[in-house]
Amino acid sequence: MTEAQPVTATGEDMHKLVERMYPLCRSITGDGVRATLDIVGEYIPLQVHEVPTGTQVLDWTVPQEWNVRDAYVADATGRRVVDFAASSLHVLGYSVPVSATMPLSELRPHLHTLPEHPSWVPYRTSYYKPEWGFCLAQETLDALPEGDYEVRVDSTLADGHLTYAEHVVPGQVEDEVIVSCHVCHPSLANDNLAGIAVATFLARELAERTPYYTYRFLFAPGTIGAITWLARNRERVDRVKHGLVLACAGDPGSLTYKRSRRGDAEIDRVLRHVLETSERPHRITEFTPYGYDERQFCSPGFDLGVGSLTRTPYAGYPEYHTSADDLDFVSPEAMADTLAVCREAFALLDRNRRYVNLSPYGEPQLGRRGLYDALGGRSDTKQAQMAMLWVLNLSDGEHGLLDVAERSGLPFDTVAAAADALRGAGLIEA
Amino acid sequence: MTEAQPVTATGEDMHKLVERMYPLCRSITGDGVRATLDIVGEYIPLQVHEVPTGTQVLDWTVPQEWNVRDAYVADATGRRVVDFAASSLHVLGYSVPVSATMPLSELRPHLHTLPEHPSWVPYRTSYYKPEWGFCLAQETLDALPEGDYEVRVDSTLADGHLTYAEHVVPGQVEDEVIVSCHVCHPSLANDNLAGIAVATFLARELAERTPYYTYRFLFAPGTIGAITWLARNRERVDRVKHGLVLACAGDPGSLTYKRSRRGDAEIDRVLRHVLETSERPHRITEFTPYGYDERQFCSPGFDLGVGSLTRTPYAGYPEYHTSADDLDFVSPEAMADTLAVCREAFALLDRNRRYVNLSPYGEPQLGRRGLYDALGGRSDTKQAQMAMLWVLNLSDGEHGLLDVAERSGLPFDTVAAAADALRGAGLIEA
Amino acid sequence: MTEAQPVTATGEDMHKLVERMYPLCRSITGDGVRATLDIVGEYIPLQVHEVPTGTQVLDWTVPQEWNVRDAYVADATGRRVVDFAASSLHVLGYSVPVSATMPLSELRPHLHTLPEHPSWVPYRTSYYKPEWGFCLAQETLDALPEGDYEVRVDSTLADGHLTYAEHVVPGQVEDEVIVSCHVCHPSLANDNLAGIAVATFLARELAERTPYYTYRFLFAPGTIGAITWLARNRERVDRVKHGLVLACAGDPGSLTYKRSRRGDAEIDRVLRHVLETSERPHRITEFTPYGYDERQFCSPGFDLGVGSLTRTPYAGYPEYHTSADDLDFVSPEAMADTLAVCREAFALLDRNRRYVNLSPYGEPQLGRRGLYDALGGRSDTKQAQMAMLWVLNLSDGEHGLLDVAERSGLPFDTVAAAADALRGAGLIEA
Repeated sequence: MTEAQPVTATGEDMHKLVERMYPLCRSITGDGVRATLDIVGEYIPLQVHEVPTGTQVLDWTVPQEWNVRDAYVADATGRRVVDFAASSLHVLGYSVPVSATMPLSELRPHLHTLPEHPSWVPYRTSYYKPEWGFCLAQETLDALPEGDYEVRVDSTLADGHLTYAEHVVPGQVEDEVIVSCHVCHPSLANDNLAGIAVATFLARELAERTPYYTYRFLFAPGTIGAITWLARNRERVDRVKHGLVLACAGDPGSLTYKRSRRGDAEIDRVLRHVLETSERPHRITEFTPYGYDERQFCSPGFDLGVGSLTRTPYAGYPEYHTSADDLDFVSPEAMADTLAVCREAFALLDRNRRYVNLSPYGEPQLGRRGLYDALGGRSDTKQAQMAMLWVLNLSDGEHGLLDVAERSGLPFDTVAAAADALRGAGLIEA
Repeated sequence: MTEAQPVTATGEDMHKLVERMYPLCRSITGDGVRATLDIVGEYIPLQVHEVPTGTQVLDWTVPQEWNVRDAYVADATGRRVVDFAASSLHVLGYSVPVSATMPLSELRPHLHTLPEHPSWVPYRTSYYKPEWGFCLAQETLDALPEGDYEVRVDSTLADGHLTYAEHVVPGQVEDEVIVSCHVCHPSLANDNLAGIAVATFLARELAERTPYYTYRFLFAPGTIGAITWLARNRERVDRVKHGLVLACAGDPGSLTYKRSRRGDAEIDRVLRHVLETSERPHRITEFTPYGYDERQFCSPGFDLGVGSLTRTPYAGYPEYHTSADDLDFVSPEAMADTLAVCREAFALLDRNRRYVNLSPYGEPQLGRRGLYDALGGRSDTKQAQMAMLWVLNLSDGEHGLLDVAERSGLPFDTVAAAADALRGAGLIEA
Repeated sequence: MTEAQPVTATGEDMHKLVERMYPLCRSITGDGVRATLDIVGEYIPLQVHEVPTGTQVLDWTVPQEWNVRDAYVADATGRRVVDFAASSLHVLGYSVPVSATMPLSELRPHLHTLPEHPSWVPYRTSYYKPEWGFCLAQETLDALPEGDYEVRVDSTLADGHLTYAEHVVPGQVEDEVIVSCHVCHPSLANDNLAGIAVATFLARELAERTPYYTYRFLFAPGTIGAITWLARNRERVDRVKHGLVLACAGDPGSLTYKRSRRGDAEIDRVLRHVLETSERPHRITEFTPYGYDERQFCSPGFDLGVGSLTRTPYAGYPEYHTSADDLDFVSPEAMADTLAVCREAFALLDRNRRYVNLSPYGEPQLGRRGLYDALGGRSDTKQAQMAMLWVLNLSDGEHGLLDVAERSGLPFDTVAAAADALRGAGLIEA
């Protein structure tokens, strides 16, 4: 069992996975995504899907595929002052090809910087409006003398495919839990290589037991990837009973759970319970139609019970979408902590059954069945006995074990153990 | 547009209207009501209704009409120590005629004063129990020597009519908003000449645009007038979707909104939103079956979504129902402020539509339609874009734009503008 | 009317009843229960039921009947160091017979003490596991020299009966309120002789008026007694609309009301209202499936609106289930206070009707019917008039008089009087 390993060892393993994926130039399509999925595929088997350019997916169309071989800005001496080879962030995502020489004044509108963080390189894209451009540090730009520069983006924008992958952990029932993470960002460690790493190791752990639900892991580009998956699974999407979008899983901040659109879906209650009963500082936030792919899963036509787990949320830290979201920004400890909460949450979700008391008129005689201390009259009652009484009292088909735990104030594990004992004695049934 | 005028100018105009109506002797019937409606009719066209004495109206009967030509108490020298000509408050409302000479001791039970405010004249009526009487200052009474006084109320109580008026601002739909104010109080400025003035100018403003709802303004005597209107409109009362009773609209206190009986009617939510998002100090109070004509509109058989807007509420200020509720007690600024809140509330109500997202599966591609900044990857998102996402996400036929504004925390105007843009792009429909 | 008596007199009478019952050796069956019911039967007529051993009652079986003639531990000199004749607590409840001589070391596992309260004797039972044993003070045990002791429990465990009793106060309707108290504890004054005494005197008071509901008092052994009653009344249990379990009714603590499983049953609202509007310190606690016979009445198959009234609740005081729960622990004043709250609560419950306004369109004209001060225009309105307006406004068949009292903030008595007046005038009907 992975659970038996020291947390730090798994944390280190996740960080190593992040390190391997970090240099690749990912975007919403292209070979960087494929190479990323190849690496993940070394950890868990993946079913990779290639969806052709032009395919209609809900309100959208799969775009042309983008690949970059090289991109740079070189000064009059031929020295590359901005170079894609140094970081995939330097080229504007989905930049159209360009090959020209132009004065700095003409080049300037194509250069994106972060004046407030002069040493950081921003991350910028232009997926649906044809543009070319470069991202660089403000201090690099400031150091450029006027004069002519050679500008080259050796990219291809052509019919091809959008790539995404699935990994399924079969459960006892066909009802599914979807765990989704975006794979479209280039060299940004927290957003979302850490999310990919936590999802990968979570999938490995789940496979070591047979979970109750079937868990489907989705590794897909943001927005268009989730939309493509939803379009291609529209008939079977009602199998998805719960879900979690994993992103920003490794930064130093505390955990943040963002509720589903429904606000009180079972996944919302499970994550709240796990976070509140743990010692962790955390935040629970309401749904907003912005952020990651919960936007798509929680669109009103689907309205799935899908929340989002991050550490510091979307756009909530200065390093967000900059070169400062690097390998040092994410830690083994933080990823291990995110993984631990996922593990606890899904363990609870898997056991959160509703039972029906088969002896609902008065209390059944627990002592006769060996379930109750036969020596009465004592003022101290054991938590396990209280849990049995609570499960019996609330098992009316309306309340699940999480309801029992929350109403009784007893630990979920104690309640679940009581339910197991009562089911074993034939007093309740699912 | 009146809205473009300086607020103070409209405030001054409303105060002038109050001044003109102030001297008239109003009651629940009679020529004082007619003269008041004549003045209002110079500002907005009125449909005046005359309902004969004896007409059955719900559980009530239209009473005899009351008119006063003269009323006074004169001392032995013939000097009028209490004189109706000085103030319409001096005669007990609906006083029966009397013409007699009697010692002060015999007169005393017919004299009403306010010992706690010795210089103020109280307002008293006896509509349904035949009485005669005078209202005067305690200090006037204290100065009267014993001896005989001539007492005269030259009034008529005879079959006639109850008078009320309506003004309709036609809207885009037949669903109605009713704005009601009582016109039965004599020389009391805040209660309710200020309410009449605000209603009148509100009607003028609404007529300058074509509102969504049809707005029906009701100028009627309190209780019996509202009951008469309800009795005569019983078949069409279900057209009334929302309503507001306007009273005490000009005193120096801050605004008070009293909820409808339903407590969460749309008008309740609109007024709460407007008051809470404005900088104004204000109070929101729960419904009580006392106060003004919300009592009738919110009786359980009708249970209309009608709230009440006042500044200081019913009986909440010492000047209430006394001669101190005079022209100085109401200010142009206060009436302008009340009018402004009515204007904002009805503008919001008129735009609070429910839409249905026509592309509810995933997000529609806003960029393709020119609705979204095509340059992705920026951490700052514009409020307008957020508003579009919120409207799309919540437009499931269950949520109105006010729901969207409240859940998103965005200004209603921003949300409504986003809805306009989305409707223009064919993405939502009403 | 008992209500007219000084409270202290009734309190003293209740304490005298407790004193008479105190010495008897009660258990879940046996002659001690019968003797107890004989005493209660001197105050109120009882219908006593005898249910044979072996009878199936829900999931349980009526056990053998237990009776004790004598029980003691005697030292080598024949001196009784533990003696049932001194206190019924000294013998383990349902102790099987034993007659033997054994060294102290062998006896020790059968001796129950309370080390933390060395002078107190604990109360212990072993109903369903055959055991023999004694309860004694730790200091008594500490003083016993090693050596042989004669051990004798002269008890009978044999087929017989389970005994319980009912007392019914007929009401105007067949709908029932059940008041239940357990009669199975030996010499423990607060738990539950005080509860029995309060129930007995409450029954006497109720019989002096004809209550609205039929009140059924149940005097039965805990758990098995309530289960037996429920089993024998399963077809008619739906007549039980409300109920109260009375226990621990005489200790010095303040009152505690424990809600029914439903949480918002009418009895819950009534007790909350009575306790909150009184000057008494008190606690309202949520339902738990532990405590007294609310466990059975609120099992999910029955789910009756039955709460529990105690002073200090179950196991909440050090004297609980020890010899320190003696005649000094319960006071006349405390029992009188518990009785007063029961009296107020059932008086309110009996009057908490739902009415329908027969004139729901607009306000009916109260003045015409002599229900309203005919002199209008006064700023002070009487509470009684407000109560009439509130009753009229909320009498839509959905709201009861307690709803009216709580929403209006008016005293329930004022609201009930207003309802009486309106019913008298033909304006509302039940």
